[in-house]
Amino acid sequence: MPDRIVKAVMRDIRFPTSRSLDGSDAMNKAPDYSAAYVTLITESGLQGDGLTFTIGRGTEICVAALDALFPLVEGLDIDEVSGDLGGVWKRLTGDSQLRWLGPDKGVIHLATAAIVNALWDLAAKRLGKPVWRILADMSPKETIALVDWRYLRDALDPGEARELLEEKMPGRAARIAEMEAQGYPAYTTSAGWLGYSDDKVRTLVRAAMAEGWTHFKMKVGADIEDDVRRARLIREEIGPDRKLMMDANQVWGVEESIANMSRLAAFDPWWIEEPTSPDDVLGHARIAREIAPINVATGEHCQNAIMFKQLLQANAIGFCQIDSCRLAGPNEIIGVLLMAEKFGVPVCPHAGGVGLCEYVQHISIFDYIAVSGSLENRVLEYVDHLHEHFVDPVVIRDGRYMPPQKPGYSITMHDQSLAEYTFPDGAAWSGQN
Amino acid sequence: MPDRIVKAVMRDIRFPTSRSLDGSDAMNKAPDYSAAYVTLITESGLQGDGLTFTIGRGTEICVAALDALFPLVEGLDIDEVSGDLGGVWKRLTGDSQLRWLGPDKGVIHLATAAIVNALWDLAAKRLGKPVWRILADMSPKETIALVDWRYLRDALDPGEARELLEEKMPGRAARIAEMEAQGYPAYTTSAGWLGYSDDKVRTLVRAAMAEGWTHFKMKVGADIEDDVRRARLIREEIGPDRKLMMDANQVWGVEESIANMSRLAAFDPWWIEEPTSPDDVLGHARIAREIAPINVATGEHCQNAIMFKQLLQANAIGFCQIDSCRLAGPNEIIGVLLMAEKFGVPVCPHAGGVGLCEYVQHISIFDYIAVSGSLENRVLEYVDHLHEHFVDPVVIRDGRYMPPQKPGYSITMHDQSLAEYTFPDGAAWSGQN
Repeated sequence: MPDRIVKAVMRDIRFPTSRSLDGSDAMNKAPDYSAAYVTLITESGLQGDGLTFTIGRGTEICVAALDALFPLVEGLDIDEVSGDLGGVWKRLTGDSQLRWLGPDKGVIHLATAAIVNALWDLAAKRLGKPVWRILADMSPKETIALVDWRYLRDALDPGEARELLEEKMPGRAARIAEMEAQGYPAYTTSAGWLGYSDDKVRTLVRAAMAEGWTHFKMKVGADIEDDVRRARLIREEIGPDRKLMMDANQVWGVEESIANMSRLAAFDPWWIEEPTSPDDVLGHARIAREIAPINVATGEHCQNAIMFKQLLQANAIGFCQIDSCRLAGPNEIIGVLLMAEKFGVPVCPHAGGVGLCEYVQHISIFDYIAVSGSLENRVLEYVDHLHEHFVDPVVIRDGRYMPPQKPGYSITMHDQSLAEYTFPDGAAWSGQN
Repeated sequence: MPDRIVKAVMRDIRFPTSRSLDGSDAMNKAPDYSAAYVTLITESGLQGDGLTFTIGRGTEICVAALDALFPLVEGLDIDEVSGDLGGVWKRLTGDSQLRWLGPDKGVIHLATAAIVNALWDLAAKRLGKPVWRILADMSPKETIALVDWRYLRDALDPGEARELLEEKMPGRAARIAEMEAQGYPAYTTSAGWLGYSDDKVRTLVRAAMAEGWTHFKMKVGADIEDDVRRARLIREEIGPDRKLMMDANQVWGVEESIANMSRLAAFDPWWIEEPTSPDDVLGHARIAREIAPINVATGEHCQNAIMFKQLLQANAIGFCQIDSCRLAGPNEIIGVLLMAEKFGVPVCPHAGGVGLCEYVQHISIFDYIAVSGSLENRVLEYVDHLHEHFVDPVVIRDGRYMPPQKPGYSITMHDQSLAEYTFPDGAAWSGQN
């Protein structure tokens, strides 16, 4: 009996985080963490949820894109979808008229991510497993069939990708057990937001150290003198051995990045994240050459696997920060994981926002089990915001993400949260108008 | 007396071109040439029109983005806008929440192009001049103030850009007169669409030669044997001296491009356009190295000036094909013209579609008058479709674009066309439903 996708519900969900400056940085001064949220529903009533993360205004544009994309999956049988997620991905990204709006970037790609993520959630619920476990149980052949290789094969041939996966097959079972027991290492960004006072930063850093965190990320880029002062403050608090990462959120030009990092080098940063435009592969490569041994990290705005391919080919990044909504779902992310493995670059996904932690735990756990087989220089971002809205929220134990156990992609929100934060009619917003 | 922008009308305009396969290529199999069209209206009733070109489905997403962007220009005085178009550009692209949807790419950037183009149309109508003439009358200082240099200055410093413009000041008046008398050289794409039979292609090529055309562009990429047969046919018709360009519309991978062009080299192509993903700077650079002396051309899907910067820095393109809707208006295009001049790469804009010819004639004429000062290896695309819908359509004389004389950016459509082709309620569509 086929079970066809017959209906979709799209929602514009916004949390008024700008009221407390949670998440503010040099580029994103007052974000309202938001999501274009889609629920795919089958004839039998099975539901799969997906979202793409946004920061307020414009979420409605992503919802319009969800409406435009839904006809491409409407009527598909969920078992056929589960068996050919690579084919469905090409179908979603290959519509010749919609492709003009990208291709594979911006609003149409963000919305594609929400739909692809919902398909994975649906498939996983149908199969009764969490997404990371479905991925960990796939054969190398099944895994490479998920990826669209058209524009990637000059960097990594699918045959070579399959060999990379096969090499790691022997240790898979042990690494699954290790993840189940100990979880995946995390780092925290909560202490470094620009909107906080020095005293609040100091208090948050101390509290985070007491909780066992060992990697700390601070926001830079608004004013270099402020950056120097706050970097000194945080380095004083964390001592010489814990890692300090910096994040400029794209505010600098290429030469400005090099000049500013020459001053911030005194505080021994492990990486500088998003020093300049996410589109500037050659700019990142030049920055990386000139500020070594400080690493360059980027990815939360890296639009697709083709850009990651080039960042890797050009030796532009020391850390690869894939985003689970900027890239169009596990299919595209897996292509990047495999390329990063070939080029020897650790993947440390972007998280925070709304639901990004819930998503990327599946990705990093799979990466360890089946692709990289290593935890060296790998940490997964964690921000302690908004998890209470999820039915199956992340579980952090001793600074590590514990693998989710429930079927799905962990992204389903509570009905009450969906109702309250729907924009503009939910209670969180209608009181404001 | 200020004259503020108080209202905007957004329209979803679609022409059912897929019914005749006009404009079909290997990637875009059945486009309905379309536009998200915005009219900005001031208190005094002055109107400025702008559009972004799309190919059917998804135009409504661009219209939603126009709605989201309009508040950023609502209430601005048109004289202030005219005096600070560079500042308004930064305002439109700098909204921190909307920026998340790009930045500077995809739907939000296409819509930004429509708004910026409408502001230029409005400013030009207020000043009583066509856009090309406003640009040609600006001082170098005024010109460089139009551009956002943040992510470009590692390739071209604004001071250096000003020097490039100043060097060309002496000949400006003579080149204005030359353009007025003789126009800007064009080439035609009408003969090379994939949807046409060999006989129709042969007939169209002969007719185009009879009209005086000297450069011909054919579509390739669906099937290499077909491509070889049609290239032979067209080369036979046009003889050895006329130029033959090829356009693959992104269907190939990097190594596939190199292999296919080694076969098509027999027909002496002047350029191969869009061999692979528009995002692949390093891929284009490798193709360019390996197929020389055939040139690589790209740009109609090149998302922003940062990508063009890298294509130039990497020696990846022999021709720079800016698009007047993919880039966000004259401000961003001028940054690219100046970088292309520094790197010695001719700019041959993308045109065709709906209104693209109307737009880019202003750009190329300005490029000749004030930036490049040269017509060598420069031709402007021309497709003879849909011009009848414009109030001030392009005028082609002896295979050359004659400079528009009416105030504005030449993009205003006839009211009747707007009514008839509004989707889905106009007469052109409602009969279909």
